[in-house]
Amino acid sequence: MAVSCLHFLQPMKVSSRGRLSFSSSDYGGYSLKRRSTCLVFASSNKLDKVKTLLDSVKWDEKGLAVAIAQNVDTGAILMQGFANRDALATTISSRRATFFSRSRSTLWTKGETSNNFINVHDIYLDCDRDSIIYLGKPDGPTCHTGAETCYYTRVSASLKHLESEIEENKLTQTTLYSLESTISQRKAELDVPQSGAPSWTRRLLLDSKLLCSKIREEVDELCRTLEENEEKSRTASEMADVLYHAMVLLALKDVKMEDVLQVLRQRFSQSGIEEKRSRKLNG
Amino acid sequence: MAVSCLHFLQPMKVSSRGRLSFSSSDYGGYSLKRRSTCLVFASSNKLDKVKTLLDSVKWDEKGLAVAIAQNVDTGAILMQGFANRDALATTISSRRATFFSRSRSTLWTKGETSNNFINVHDIYLDCDRDSIIYLGKPDGPTCHTGAETCYYTRVSASLKHLESEIEENKLTQTTLYSLESTISQRKAELDVPQSGAPSWTRRLLLDSKLLCSKIREEVDELCRTLEENEEKSRTASEMADVLYHAMVLLALKDVKMEDVLQVLRQRFSQSGIEEKRSRKLNG
Repeated sequence: MAVSCLHFLQPMKVSSRGRLSFSSSDYGGYSLKRRSTCLVFASSNKLDKVKTLLDSVKWDEKGLAVAIAQNVDTGAILMQGFANRDALATTISSRRATFFSRSRSTLWTKGETSNNFINVHDIYLDCDRDSIIYLGKPDGPTCHTGAETCYYTRVSASLKHLESEIEENKLTQTTLYSLESTISQRKAELDVPQSGAPSWTRRLLLDSKLLCSKIREEVDELCRTLEENEEKSRTASEMADVLYHAMVLLALKDVKMEDVLQVLRQRFSQSGIEEKRSRKLNG
Repeated sequence: MAVSCLHFLQPMKVSSRGRLSFSSSDYGGYSLKRRSTCLVFASSNKLDKVKTLLDSVKWDEKGLAVAIAQNVDTGAILMQGFANRDALATTISSRRATFFSRSRSTLWTKGETSNNFINVHDIYLDCDRDSIIYLGKPDGPTCHTGAETCYYTRVSASLKHLESEIEENKLTQTTLYSLESTISQRKAELDVPQSGAPSWTRRLLLDSKLLCSKIREEVDELCRTLEENEEKSRTASEMADVLYHAMVLLALKDVKMEDVLQVLRQRFSQSGIEEKRSRKLNG
């Protein structure tokens, strides 16, 4: 019975006290009898669990906790807001990142005006239970400025170089995406004449044959670290080479690492890779 | 002159008003004359910049802003605290993530007791200038419990399966690290007898020859999406296969994706890959 009710998880509304409600449009083709059963089930189980969860959060004196939205594939921090009980309850029931606006004293779901919702896959609490991560997939740019994330203002690099106080349009980038961005920049500069020796990335971008031969060579070196029982550090180094060269290929094909990770997530959430490969091998 | 003063960035202290001070141990072998020059330089430039930066943050009524520490390589959110002017100024000067403890009303640098500092590479502000990311590399586990990050309590999955309110020991994992963790789990179970057909990951882990042959095959398929001008979606799909199979090899060699990314970052921060490859090719 529990399983048959899971389709209700998405549309049902959970109030901050843990009460469930359904809007009439949520029922779809299900019979009233089935609905009633679910409601009874939900009242005795689901509601308690939501209430227990909401009670377990250490809300501050204003009833708020920090809520951080993070991209499930890339790890990018998309935005940070605050959640109260209602915002967290709404996020749980709607699976869309919802916050409490301190300036407007109201709930708001990211995307309610832009349609760029953040589809929440998982919710995490920190050890103090006063900080929440909404781990999810954004439908589009998160920032109201149109930027991919709200964190595009870099301050420390500017301090280091003593050039300007603040650099705008510098999205926070972790290693993989910083590399992706560098490669993409080199690709954009391909038409610009260069003085001096071309960078290695430029050469690879201009010569697909060279690129593919390097990718095959690097992967061979990676395999040999296992086959010939080489040092761990060699494996890390060769894998870095494989990643870099493969990412140049991705850039040429206009494929983002995020697209690749999305494929990986979708396959793995269905145990798809294992299933597919096993079939291939056995078939 | 500006460049010659950069070695002072690390040891100098920046107060919340933007004033600099040096402890006597910071001077090292530098002559008094050189120091004085730098101090003059710093007063007129660096101090203004730090003050401008600190002024540009939208501190709340308690003088605080949310500060999130994120792993520069993996993107993992390590912890979240609050910063005041002094905490941000200290982070800038010491390059170690520093917060303001609301319960103890004092500054604290993560790692001051555990020695697990977070070495800050970059600092970002969000579009509202009231939220800060410290992008850095942790020296060890960030959480006081010994966990890698403070976010190891998953709540949504438990709600979905209606099993328990809260799952502990479930670190927040984005796609790549979730896959890494699954592979690592399969590796840990290798000694446990399995009923039914083994999973594909298990077969690969048990048969290095099969694994290496698959890695070479998948990378060949990836290259052919470029050589034969196949659909973008094929490229993403083949790259996902390459990543997955290569990560099984990493697991066998006990190499973490974080180690690989660290190699990549270190090479790229020195334009190392390009430099090394170029040398190899020209040499």
